[in-house]
Amino acid sequence: MTSPASALIAIDWGTSNLRASLLDASGAEIETRATPGGVMAVKNGAFGEALLALCGDWIERRADALIASGMVGSRQGWKEAAYLDCPAGLAEAAAQLTRVDVLPDVPLHIVPGLTCRSPDGEDDVMRGEETQMWGADLAPGSICMLPGTHAKWAWIGEAGQVTRFATYMTGELYGLLTQHGILGRLMTFGQSSPEAFEAGVRLGLEQHDNATHVIFAARTAGLMGRVPAEGLPDYLSGILMGIEIASATRTERPRAVVLLGDDGLCSRYAKALELAGIASTRAADGATTRGQWRVAQAAGLVERQP
Amino acid sequence: MTSPASALIAIDWGTSNLRASLLDASGAEIETRATPGGVMAVKNGAFGEALLALCGDWIERRADALIASGMVGSRQGWKEAAYLDCPAGLAEAAAQLTRVDVLPDVPLHIVPGLTCRSPDGEDDVMRGEETQMWGADLAPGSICMLPGTHAKWAWIGEAGQVTRFATYMTGELYGLLTQHGILGRLMTFGQSSPEAFEAGVRLGLEQHDNATHVIFAARTAGLMGRVPAEGLPDYLSGILMGIEIASATRTERPRAVVLLGDDGLCSRYAKALELAGIASTRAADGATTRGQWRVAQAAGLVERQP
Repeated sequence: MTSPASALIAIDWGTSNLRASLLDASGAEIETRATPGGVMAVKNGAFGEALLALCGDWIERRADALIASGMVGSRQGWKEAAYLDCPAGLAEAAAQLTRVDVLPDVPLHIVPGLTCRSPDGEDDVMRGEETQMWGADLAPGSICMLPGTHAKWAWIGEAGQVTRFATYMTGELYGLLTQHGILGRLMTFGQSSPEAFEAGVRLGLEQHDNATHVIFAARTAGLMGRVPAEGLPDYLSGILMGIEIASATRTERPRAVVLLGDDGLCSRYAKALELAGIASTRAADGATTRGQWRVAQAAGLVERQP
Repeated sequence: MTSPASALIAIDWGTSNLRASLLDASGAEIETRATPGGVMAVKNGAFGEALLALCGDWIERRADALIASGMVGSRQGWKEAAYLDCPAGLAEAAAQLTRVDVLPDVPLHIVPGLTCRSPDGEDDVMRGEETQMWGADLAPGSICMLPGTHAKWAWIGEAGQVTRFATYMTGELYGLLTQHGILGRLMTFGQSSPEAFEAGVRLGLEQHDNATHVIFAARTAGLMGRVPAEGLPDYLSGILMGIEIASATRTERPRAVVLLGDDGLCSRYAKALELAGIASTRAADGATTRGQWRVAQAAGLVERQP
């Protein structure tokens, strides 16, 4: 049995996870491997060793190009890949890859992250989500929402360029408030409560301009017995999502948003968006690998299909 | 040498601290003692023992009345003291004291906390701050702001009644984000940076309706080198205070606010309020003990002055 012909090793290297996919000459996945060896888990800059441990057999036996996106290009990563200013698309990214050597004469090309500056001089940054969006076939004029620890809202221009974007700390705030804060003390975890979630979303949507007050409702609703202890986690989650959605759409309310990411989180956001009167669709799976393939094509690392 | 005649033992028993003051028949402090033995530090409900350890000599040798305010009246405290609904003043509080026995026939009277309900059915709560405000000689129509882990904004009516109030989780959020979150990773602590603080306040004031996004600026400003690592703690503190001030005053902008609390925090809020175009004054020291004295008078626990 001969191995199928491969063309690209596509690496998604985030804060907490490392995933490598072997792609054939049409960009289809032959094999994928993953470990929890994210950027934060790599000690003493041993990024090459971490990658070889996961897929050294692919790298040593084949002459495939290597591309990576995500936090591997951050200051805490293998090598800092300078940010691209928005608006930016995959052509600009392909022209600004950062090279590191996995082995002598075996380069890995790191996709740059994006930065965008708001009119009042405040910056925002992303690393990894841009590549995911370039693989998601987003229509010009659409808004893409990527749930997570640091949720991203991105406005898409011509040819899938990212025109501007904004980060919301929704996931991190939920984690901090429930695991380390006073709100968590009244909570019982592990049960889902669609009713409490919906009440929370409505409150967050109504009072997004009073955010650091309204999250305290996840304590008072417990104290006053309005939301049972097992409903309080979903109540807080709803409040934070409501705040995020109303904030991100405060100047212009979209009719629809494209959700890109984890199934469970996307379902929750779809429900919250519905309560805000905003429709949502789901991007197809495999966007990250597809985006990496497209950047590699644009950079000439793999042959373009005829 | 004889001890001066005492009349009241006034106890301020919060989450983290326990403080007892011995007051004479005019309400003046004879002596004050404090320990870090707050409500959270008391094990197995041993509140009586904790109080006797601090000032058992006062309690056993004298026939003074005892009054307490703060988290000692919470569900995690000695005994839950039912909340009073706003509007509420010290006359209403004096009529609803909760009794526990320190020793047989030695009662301690716990001042109730306050609750207020917003038009959309959301509750808010306070315990301790109400008594502090009743000792602060607040004018009808004034707004009182009490900085802290859970900062309070209170609107004052006739005879010092608290008409309504709102909690802002500013202090807790600062602690969580800097001690347990990603924002703290870029920060160098221990230096003050008035410039970064001011820039943060301005950003928070401008984007209070985008709160869970704009706190992320305390990361990006560090990544982009716009704020040095040692300025980032004050930058975040300013952003959170700016969000709080603009949120609390979003429906009606006051000309002035009375600050009540810790000197350092009140100075920071005074500066932030100034940047928001709101004047501030400081309430006199000793408000908690004075408030407890006044509630005790209204309840007939001590004689009223002629």
